[in-house]
Amino acid sequence: MENPDNNESVESKRYPLLETIDSPADLRRMSTEKLPAVCAEIRDFLINSLSTNPGHFASSMGAVELTVALHYVFNTPYDRIVWDVGHQAYGHKLLTGRRDKFDTNRKFGGLSGFPNPEESPYDTFTAGHASNSISAALGMAMASELNNDKPRRNVVAVIGDASISGGLAFEGLNNASINKNNLLIILNDNDMSIDRNVGALNSYLAHLNTTRAYNRFRYRLFRLLKKLHLVTDKQKGFIMRFNNSVKSLLSHQQNIFEGLNIRYFGPIDGHDIDRVVRVLSDIKDMEGPRLLHLRTTKGKGYKPAEDDPASWHAPGLFDPKSGERKHDSDSPAKYQDVFGHTLLELARANDKIVGITAAMPSGTSMSIMQEQLPSRVFDVGISEGHAVTFAGGLAKDGMRPFCAIYSSFLQRAYDHIIHDVAIQNLPVTFCIDRAGIVGEDGVTHHGVFDLSYLRAIPNLTIASPRDEASLRNLLYTAQSADRGPFAIRYPRGKGSNPDWRTPMHEIAIGRGQRLVDGNDVAVLTIGPMANKAAAAIERARRENGIEAAHYDMIFLKPIDEQLLDEVGRKGCPVITVEDGVRDGGLGSAVTEWMNDHGYHPHITRIGVPDMFVPHGKVPQLMNLCEMDENAIYNAIVQANNTHKL
Amino acid sequence: MENPDNNESVESKRYPLLETIDSPADLRRMSTEKLPAVCAEIRDFLINSLSTNPGHFASSMGAVELTVALHYVFNTPYDRIVWDVGHQAYGHKLLTGRRDKFDTNRKFGGLSGFPNPEESPYDTFTAGHASNSISAALGMAMASELNNDKPRRNVVAVIGDASISGGLAFEGLNNASINKNNLLIILNDNDMSIDRNVGALNSYLAHLNTTRAYNRFRYRLFRLLKKLHLVTDKQKGFIMRFNNSVKSLLSHQQNIFEGLNIRYFGPIDGHDIDRVVRVLSDIKDMEGPRLLHLRTTKGKGYKPAEDDPASWHAPGLFDPKSGERKHDSDSPAKYQDVFGHTLLELARANDKIVGITAAMPSGTSMSIMQEQLPSRVFDVGISEGHAVTFAGGLAKDGMRPFCAIYSSFLQRAYDHIIHDVAIQNLPVTFCIDRAGIVGEDGVTHHGVFDLSYLRAIPNLTIASPRDEASLRNLLYTAQSADRGPFAIRYPRGKGSNPDWRTPMHEIAIGRGQRLVDGNDVAVLTIGPMANKAAAAIERARRENGIEAAHYDMIFLKPIDEQLLDEVGRKGCPVITVEDGVRDGGLGSAVTEWMNDHGYHPHITRIGVPDMFVPHGKVPQLMNLCEMDENAIYNAIVQANNTHKL
Repeated sequence: MENPDNNESVESKRYPLLETIDSPADLRRMSTEKLPAVCAEIRDFLINSLSTNPGHFASSMGAVELTVALHYVFNTPYDRIVWDVGHQAYGHKLLTGRRDKFDTNRKFGGLSGFPNPEESPYDTFTAGHASNSISAALGMAMASELNNDKPRRNVVAVIGDASISGGLAFEGLNNASINKNNLLIILNDNDMSIDRNVGALNSYLAHLNTTRAYNRFRYRLFRLLKKLHLVTDKQKGFIMRFNNSVKSLLSHQQNIFEGLNIRYFGPIDGHDIDRVVRVLSDIKDMEGPRLLHLRTTKGKGYKPAEDDPASWHAPGLFDPKSGERKHDSDSPAKYQDVFGHTLLELARANDKIVGITAAMPSGTSMSIMQEQLPSRVFDVGISEGHAVTFAGGLAKDGMRPFCAIYSSFLQRAYDHIIHDVAIQNLPVTFCIDRAGIVGEDGVTHHGVFDLSYLRAIPNLTIASPRDEASLRNLLYTAQSADRGPFAIRYPRGKGSNPDWRTPMHEIAIGRGQRLVDGNDVAVLTIGPMANKAAAAIERARRENGIEAAHYDMIFLKPIDEQLLDEVGRKGCPVITVEDGVRDGGLGSAVTEWMNDHGYHPHITRIGVPDMFVPHGKVPQLMNLCEMDENAIYNAIVQANNTHKL
Repeated sequence: MENPDNNESVESKRYPLLETIDSPADLRRMSTEKLPAVCAEIRDFLINSLSTNPGHFASSMGAVELTVALHYVFNTPYDRIVWDVGHQAYGHKLLTGRRDKFDTNRKFGGLSGFPNPEESPYDTFTAGHASNSISAALGMAMASELNNDKPRRNVVAVIGDASISGGLAFEGLNNASINKNNLLIILNDNDMSIDRNVGALNSYLAHLNTTRAYNRFRYRLFRLLKKLHLVTDKQKGFIMRFNNSVKSLLSHQQNIFEGLNIRYFGPIDGHDIDRVVRVLSDIKDMEGPRLLHLRTTKGKGYKPAEDDPASWHAPGLFDPKSGERKHDSDSPAKYQDVFGHTLLELARANDKIVGITAAMPSGTSMSIMQEQLPSRVFDVGISEGHAVTFAGGLAKDGMRPFCAIYSSFLQRAYDHIIHDVAIQNLPVTFCIDRAGIVGEDGVTHHGVFDLSYLRAIPNLTIASPRDEASLRNLLYTAQSADRGPFAIRYPRGKGSNPDWRTPMHEIAIGRGQRLVDGNDVAVLTIGPMANKAAAAIERARRENGIEAAHYDMIFLKPIDEQLLDEVGRKGCPVITVEDGVRDGGLGSAVTEWMNDHGYHPHITRIGVPDMFVPHGKVPQLMNLCEMDENAIYNAIVQANNTHKL
């Protein structure tokens, strides 16, 4: 197991104020005047640290003042801050006792790149999938009411303008006011998700700028009343009536949040730390759900990131002075790019093909088709459920939608796959990116459940390519005939063939391939795990003289029964290998089939064990899960030895 | 297989107009003056038919004028109507060529109780799970744009005020305006879901009543302009500007839908057929997404249902004249009632327990606790995702939430279970009602996937009781220690023990029970399938002298390894029985465990095969799926014979 690198590039003397902050209590002892300097130091720290140890950059840069203000005004961790997604929580980590460990960020055994309750009491809830903060924070706020906590506990959800457009966030907003509670929602509005934000709500938030004068007026009146000690808990009836009269006085357009009974404040400049602190102090003791709308700039304080925030979302290594980024070599291509280019190729030849992405045009490389055929690509924002149901509607009326969604995010659309696609056997192709262990993004992002949760769905074809050529053939095959829903899963990262632009051809549904023959052991793989298995098989042959057969199943469903029959008849031990959970996927399917057909080989199932996998480099995690080349090799040797006894 | 009953109570002479309508084209040939009479006949038909062949009553009664108006104004099936959920679509079935078959409604081999594209081209999309209509209809509208359909195709989503509060509907609304399209959303607002509707949006919709004068004024101006031929497609720029000036003229509060760039009309009386026809005719050719808000009364036209719409949602048999309902006997109790009463009992003793339901207080019997401890029960409306994430927040801060959701609806919250509960190992108890085959509600409602989709989730305990006492003990056990997430699934319908109020005690996690010993065959069951298995075992003993052992596993996860070891050592054939999909649940778990531990019994897995199960009586469907008592008996005999050969 690799030790976290020792990164000494962060010299602590550069941060005279930050160095004195070991917890938010230290921050709260400072005078307000010092806060801008604290913010500047945090930005310096982030630039220096992230330039050498890559992570999510631009979101945290944009949230610095907000982060400082929250910990300054609220009594954390007694008061709860619930970050949504948590890309933006690096500043929060620096202020909450994790500055010295920040060079281990996203490394195996080191800090998580997202808020993680196991890591710190300041990280109140799992963050990684968008739009959950309002619901989770509302739960905490209600728990505090029911527990009758003294002193009163504040609960703050911090949500971006992209996350708030997700259905889950709306469900949270719709429920926020139905019980008495003390929830504050901070809308961190930078007009960005990872890419540029989309959707009607987004335009609407921009429009709220135009109502700023009214809100400022109302806010000032509120402050005046507060100074005169007219606003207390007991007088909330009065203040509500007062608000209503101001509203009617100014004939203000009611906004969406107020329509949902959530008091709205803003928009205000989220980089004006004095102002943010003042407003937070003012509204923190108000009763009932409130929303404060902050305008921020993603990448704030670092010009290259401000100019191109999407590509600085997670920029990799860069030179802090020049902003020059150390790009990976383009070869071999990433699986996502093979997908993106191939989809464009197919779409040019088949005008029924449309592309759908849920706020991830660049993350899925759907951007390649989007640039060339913009009218046929739909970026629906962070709404995986809608993406799938919308695809169902398109498919029902003759289109062939290719819906590219990360494996772990597709969990959000599980019912939609069943109810809105599979029941009607509609030809939607699910292009499941980031399938398997993803590495540094960790526990919330590993795409390890899909084979298991998809296998039981009737009508669904499920496949995974072992290489670029196979991915292209699967995509070609998915669009070329009337064959119902089709899931194709492929991993994060690169393939292996620099010359991947091979001609495509249709392949037989439910047919695998024998790659190597042998009678001592049979290794059955799905997806690019084939390559690890091939190396292990070669080693076992070389070092132990074991003749292991290797089959690439390609399809989990329908599974290749002819091939399984061939394997069963060998009578040798079987090893299944998949980059996904061990229970429910390929290993289970093979075990069931063998049993159902009267074969009883010993089967070793290699895959992710029954645990949540932490973050780290993919090889570290594959090692942890005993699914790397070495583990496969050991399984081959052991199966062979046991069988020969 | 049972034949659909021959129900001749519907005398066709009673319906002189309806009789002449074999398709909507016949309706469209009628003069507008006849429509009220058509509506009255539909209501009569529904009352007569549903009083003898039970189904969803009140929703369809409330949607009669809307249904007639839609088929009158739109050119169905070329124009698409997408019903949301589809409880309300009986009138639609009557008008679209299915009047003569309506006595087979919800029966095995008969009409589906929901819109079903396999049944009719007028049923455009699967309906059964709420909130999908806007996304699906938007997909169809975009397909029509991309296909450049001539004549222009109208796509209409019909959604209730409860469904529209679901996150998926919001995602659809948020995306409705981002591309040019021809989507009309009808908001059928009766202030009800199955129970009384909740949430801020619901109050907001009520509030829209107060703005009726403005909307009426705007609409009249619009009609005037249209009469003067000033409104054409080319002049939409003008009409938009006009609208905006009227808006500023009247200083109207902007409404939520207009905030999302969807033109809003209403609210209008949804039972005024002339008005509904006129408004639909007026707005049908407008460009861009529009929403028409209709006020309707659930149960309209039948006094008992109007007075108590929740209980007339699906009233069972009733006397059409008196409204007297033929109640089932109360004994034995339904599983949901055993759950509801037990939860109240536990909550009275443990003040950390809170209850959560997603718009199903009476459907889950969460109403029992709600009535007694209202501050500790949260009905969050149709928002299963929020329900689970909210439960996560409550649990994180010390509460013990019991989240009661139907199995098939819990599919909507799959990611939330993983991401917002299981990763943090939070003590949320999932009370999964309607697990297994549910009967007449059919394909969208069978809760057959849960064991499979939950099994791969780390930290989760999964159990199913075979009877009332076991359910009570599981609930007791779930709340009594700090043990992370806990799923308890139980079926629709009744238990078997009239005296179910037995004392509760804690049971050992992951321990099953040997109910009967025997060495010829081992039958492993989970849940109330134990009872069918017990009968089959008894019959095999009596008729064939087979000594079959019977184990109730109780827990799918962690599975009882000691018990499995005992079974493995017997060396006899094994039969697993579960009311869920065959792939991924108990049968898979047992097969995997036996293989992993070097046992190789022949295992017969009894469960739902790889198909979507239609509607019908539960015994009919169990027979279809070869999982009834007879099938278990046959499996025992066959396994025994094969083994003895």
